[in-house]
Amino acid sequence: MSGARVGFVPTMGYLHAGHTSLMDIARPQCDQMVASIFVNPLQFGPNEDLDVYPRDPEGDAEKCVAHGVDALFLPEESSFYPDGFVSTVHVDRLTEGLCGAKRPGHFDGVTTVVARLFGLIRPDLAVFGTKDYQQIAVIRQMVSDLALGVEICPGPIVRDADGLALSSRNRFLSKEARRRALTLNACLRAIGDAGERDVAALNDIGKAVLDVDRLDYLEIVDPVTLQPLDTVRDDAQALIAAFVGGTRLIDNLRISRGDT
Amino acid sequence: MSGARVGFVPTMGYLHAGHTSLMDIARPQCDQMVASIFVNPLQFGPNEDLDVYPRDPEGDAEKCVAHGVDALFLPEESSFYPDGFVSTVHVDRLTEGLCGAKRPGHFDGVTTVVARLFGLIRPDLAVFGTKDYQQIAVIRQMVSDLALGVEICPGPIVRDADGLALSSRNRFLSKEARRRALTLNACLRAIGDAGERDVAALNDIGKAVLDVDRLDYLEIVDPVTLQPLDTVRDDAQALIAAFVGGTRLIDNLRISRGDT
Repeated sequence: MSGARVGFVPTMGYLHAGHTSLMDIARPQCDQMVASIFVNPLQFGPNEDLDVYPRDPEGDAEKCVAHGVDALFLPEESSFYPDGFVSTVHVDRLTEGLCGAKRPGHFDGVTTVVARLFGLIRPDLAVFGTKDYQQIAVIRQMVSDLALGVEICPGPIVRDADGLALSSRNRFLSKEARRRALTLNACLRAIGDAGERDVAALNDIGKAVLDVDRLDYLEIVDPVTLQPLDTVRDDAQALIAAFVGGTRLIDNLRISRGDT
Repeated sequence: MSGARVGFVPTMGYLHAGHTSLMDIARPQCDQMVASIFVNPLQFGPNEDLDVYPRDPEGDAEKCVAHGVDALFLPEESSFYPDGFVSTVHVDRLTEGLCGAKRPGHFDGVTTVVARLFGLIRPDLAVFGTKDYQQIAVIRQMVSDLALGVEICPGPIVRDADGLALSSRNRFLSKEARRRALTLNACLRAIGDAGERDVAALNDIGKAVLDVDRLDYLEIVDPVTLQPLDTVRDDAQALIAAFVGGTRLIDNLRISRGDT
């Protein structure tokens, strides 16, 4: 194995076409591909859905084989963190807004589990989906700051035919909730298509389309720093998180001035 | 270099025989030995001695060569942390007491710089002195938790003939202050020689010997968990930190029941 290039796709399981697209991205770039399935308790808040997060290890294993995974790391949830585990990796600034503001401690859980997974698996390359747009930015920063030496590859959002971003949590949506969940992506597309630069106006345009139970955030930010913008100059990223029928969903879309 | 075993001795420079003893420990265990000199601002508090910490890069380089260092990493203090660096590695619990209690943020600075140095240098083995007893415990924990894959080797405390533990900060001691600084080690030896198991009594015995300006702590703790003990059962570690003539010094000694 010495000298083999190792690709890695970390997941929380209940795999869908979004996850397998990450495997398809990694496969041609590595000699050995490792996937992991671990529902990481550290990244769930006390009132979040850790206990009901969907699991399907056998179906997941079949999908991994079909997409060329060489090794599937499926640690016991009780033993992944050894007794006495007390370390945390914290990334400041990038974690302050968006999901970081709404889910305290979430990104510390993400960076800590990813650092430990990188240590255990030693990948050359890891692929993360861009539905979790803030997550991949935070992980890139950690990798740079701690010189972890892992190339981070983004995987584009995979959507159902109706535009809904794939998520393991979509299984919780009733038919009626799913219809309303589509308004997250519709909201982002309305913002992207508006031909408008003023962020306050864009937010109004987006919110007019939304039909959700609770909006966590709708923000238009710099695509690198994730800092909120007042005016869209060149590229910007529109991000949304909202609850529909008790399920929290996220989505995002790049909006570019000039090519709308 | 592929397959070569890399040893690493991280330091803050102004090297003394304590540092070079770490190099002598690493040298036979590795093919390539890297040392680093970096006075890490993250591990100094706002009222500490970062600005006056002694520096001697040329003398240090000579000592490194004499002790078989193959590569000396001497980063610019202004550029070691790239612009936008925002990550922190935090180790909980082990950092709560002792120096961690007296120097808030100190160990976050230590673990963060060591994680970044390990990332940049990729050692198989790293040697740390045990004068900083809590530091090496914290680093071991980080390496285990984040699966960094670096073997951590302890280097015994090196002392001057009069018993004073070597420290780059000893240069700040006047002749009079140095005489009083010797009471740190004398205090620890009095505790170790007392043939007493009760920690409160041992503390009194130690303090009777001390002649310092301010005692930061004198504690007798479990050598692994660093938790304070009431009674010395098997092994215990006595640790002291105190200011003498404006200089903060630390020392520690293993005390064993039965062989005193």
